[in-house]
Amino acid sequence: MDIGWLSGAGVAWSTDPAVREAHRADRSGWPPDGRPAAVVFPQDAAEVQRVLRLADAHRTPVVPRGAGTGLSGAAAAGAGAVVLDLTRMNRIVSVSPVDAVAVAEPGVLTADLDAAAGAHGLRYAPDPASVAISTIGGNIATNAGGLRCAKYGVTRDSVLGLDVVLADGRLISTGRATLKGVAGYDLTGLFVGSEGTLGVVVRATLRLRPIPLATATTAAFFADVETAAAAVAELSTSRVQPAVAELMDEANLRAVDAAQGSDLAARGSALLIVQTDGAGAEAEAAVVTAVLARTATSVRTTTDPAEAAELLAARRLSLPSIERIGRPLIEDIAVPRARLAEAFRGIAAISARHGVPVFTVAHAGDGNLHPVLVVDPALPEVPAAAWRAADEIFELALRLGGTLTGEHGVGTLKRRWLTRELGADNHELQRGIKALFDPHGILNPGKAI
Amino acid sequence: MDIGWLSGAGVAWSTDPAVREAHRADRSGWPPDGRPAAVVFPQDAAEVQRVLRLADAHRTPVVPRGAGTGLSGAAAAGAGAVVLDLTRMNRIVSVSPVDAVAVAEPGVLTADLDAAAGAHGLRYAPDPASVAISTIGGNIATNAGGLRCAKYGVTRDSVLGLDVVLADGRLISTGRATLKGVAGYDLTGLFVGSEGTLGVVVRATLRLRPIPLATATTAAFFADVETAAAAVAELSTSRVQPAVAELMDEANLRAVDAAQGSDLAARGSALLIVQTDGAGAEAEAAVVTAVLARTATSVRTTTDPAEAAELLAARRLSLPSIERIGRPLIEDIAVPRARLAEAFRGIAAISARHGVPVFTVAHAGDGNLHPVLVVDPALPEVPAAAWRAADEIFELALRLGGTLTGEHGVGTLKRRWLTRELGADNHELQRGIKALFDPHGILNPGKAI
Repeated sequence: MDIGWLSGAGVAWSTDPAVREAHRADRSGWPPDGRPAAVVFPQDAAEVQRVLRLADAHRTPVVPRGAGTGLSGAAAAGAGAVVLDLTRMNRIVSVSPVDAVAVAEPGVLTADLDAAAGAHGLRYAPDPASVAISTIGGNIATNAGGLRCAKYGVTRDSVLGLDVVLADGRLISTGRATLKGVAGYDLTGLFVGSEGTLGVVVRATLRLRPIPLATATTAAFFADVETAAAAVAELSTSRVQPAVAELMDEANLRAVDAAQGSDLAARGSALLIVQTDGAGAEAEAAVVTAVLARTATSVRTTTDPAEAAELLAARRLSLPSIERIGRPLIEDIAVPRARLAEAFRGIAAISARHGVPVFTVAHAGDGNLHPVLVVDPALPEVPAAAWRAADEIFELALRLGGTLTGEHGVGTLKRRWLTRELGADNHELQRGIKALFDPHGILNPGKAI
Repeated sequence: MDIGWLSGAGVAWSTDPAVREAHRADRSGWPPDGRPAAVVFPQDAAEVQRVLRLADAHRTPVVPRGAGTGLSGAAAAGAGAVVLDLTRMNRIVSVSPVDAVAVAEPGVLTADLDAAAGAHGLRYAPDPASVAISTIGGNIATNAGGLRCAKYGVTRDSVLGLDVVLADGRLISTGRATLKGVAGYDLTGLFVGSEGTLGVVVRATLRLRPIPLATATTAAFFADVETAAAAVAELSTSRVQPAVAELMDEANLRAVDAAQGSDLAARGSALLIVQTDGAGAEAEAAVVTAVLARTATSVRTTTDPAEAAELLAARRLSLPSIERIGRPLIEDIAVPRARLAEAFRGIAAISARHGVPVFTVAHAGDGNLHPVLVVDPALPEVPAAAWRAADEIFELALRLGGTLTGEHGVGTLKRRWLTRELGADNHELQRGIKALFDPHGILNPGKAI
């Protein structure tokens, strides 16, 4: 692929093999064919416009990229592609505390935006596990979720407006700077979660929310994960909306114990961590406790931030702990909350049937499960049994009325399953939208839809 | 227009002049040219499919309609159009309390859905002023807002998935039954707010939320509305998220007093009603009170439901009270919260300049203002001065960084302003989406974009 045209774009770029290698993959484990042809480092929207205008004219595939922390292969860039690395566009343009609105460039780390809001008693609510290392632009591209979604929504719920460079280099603004607005079709929502296939986000207007006056954290242990899942479902009609409801299965608890020296598995075979927040956090925790105590083996609430952080640390340490056991393949199904226990049961059966260890954590309030398949890191590639187990987990999700992906996205990993979830006519419309926005198919081809 | 083909659709329909007249307009005051050719009353999705398939083949414009309570002219149907009256599709298909999800047909009254959820300690959060008389389908078509949006979002935030009949009669499902999901582009969000121009919603999967354990209502009077608007802005960094923050100007208070025999205007020149909710409602109301007391002339909180209902009644009676004075034209701008006081000031100046009385209420937490222009009902049409005042109000909204429409929609009334808000390239993309979904332009032509 001739990429000599890049020199006409007036933008910093590199064809250094080490740079190209570093921009080849994301954290999905999905290996692209070959290496990208070049990596471009735009500093502002005008530079992105020049690159896309030329790439479109030369029919060169462009792969937009934030921090590369994605889990679905959406940022994977193979031979012939030009990677558009947006991490140098990392200015927090403004934080308006009275409006509870921030404006940021795509390369801002999500945790940095949250910290800037925190100076005013506000926060950026979406908190994917990668919050400290992933970017706002990447979060928007994947419509990232996190722990607090049940109460505060996903990334889409915090994006008010976007500046987007289209495939042909035109710059448009979508949405608004106000909290509400219904002028025209919701292009903002369409770009969020589109994995860089419809345009390149160069600026985002983001909603901030108050940091709650108080937070209470309740930890409940159960004799098994299915009982815990059923208990979460019981919370639905308790008139309390938890901000966080994280569920870890026994395999997770054992992995964390082994890696961190804790004794979680000795206290139960499943751990549910629920956070309530607002001035009534403690009173709401008492309601939660009453519900959980019906079936839990132990329940305890704390309002001490250090103790709460320690409890949530067990959840956050789950993946690093599993990584000490083998190579993790992180799945991401979601099911209606009433089917959560069934989902855990089904995953356990699939794990046993294929002889593939599976460690499952769930954002239980959302019905969003992350079954983590673990394979031998010494193997040159992922064994067929693991792919078969993953396939069956997707089948299980659809059979339970759920989805292939709650928050990680389709990327390259789940594309072959997508028509089955969407239906052929819906999928065809989505391809029509792609063709409308990107007639020459240069934007992250082969991803998302 | 020949509509003889309708007899082949096997669907109840009418050409009775009285029925056609009753399906001609909405509540916007916008008069369509002539009367629709016929009104069709489908009972299920298959009937909608048959009508659209034939209408598409015959290139006949179809205007989908719920209860006709819209305020932007989106449901207005002129000569030659066939109205698709969806009010007979009014089944609540299911309410799943554990999932906190309901499935409903488009003709269900929004208040009926909310009541069905209430039996399980849940509610349907979006509460447009029309909640008792408008339909879920109409709310989805306009992405309706309401009083509780600041905390609980607009209609789009409560729609998980849709069944939609496309212009050519195909039926697709969008979205999901789970609380989270990122498989493919967000077609659900695209249909919400599209005013029936992209497809006809025949079933919706809706998110329910817990009825808060408690609610506290704070009423504060101010010496003038600008001071009140500034006080609302101060709440932003108080770490409390009010569920409701309604602001009424002096003209409103006088209108309500005259119609209802109350003495609101004697107590101040502006009334701000703030509701906090959850187990900490009272504690959060104390925080709100402390902020408002800095500039209010009086502040009072109640947790008595009857007293709270009485306070909110003043707000809900605003429009009926104004209707006793003249014919109301309800505008619907939104501005960043920090510009709320300026917006009130600007509207007052516009009212004085054109000699058109304007009564303004605001969903102040959202920066969403409803300036109600009042004209002489004896006049055969809206006087030019009122249109000029409305134009200047739109200009004001855009100048303050806001939008033409916070929650009522574009319909027919605001189309000529839309390109100015969206920009030409964005508007062109929207037209491209319309052409993709509805190649023959039969779905509610001349609306929304």
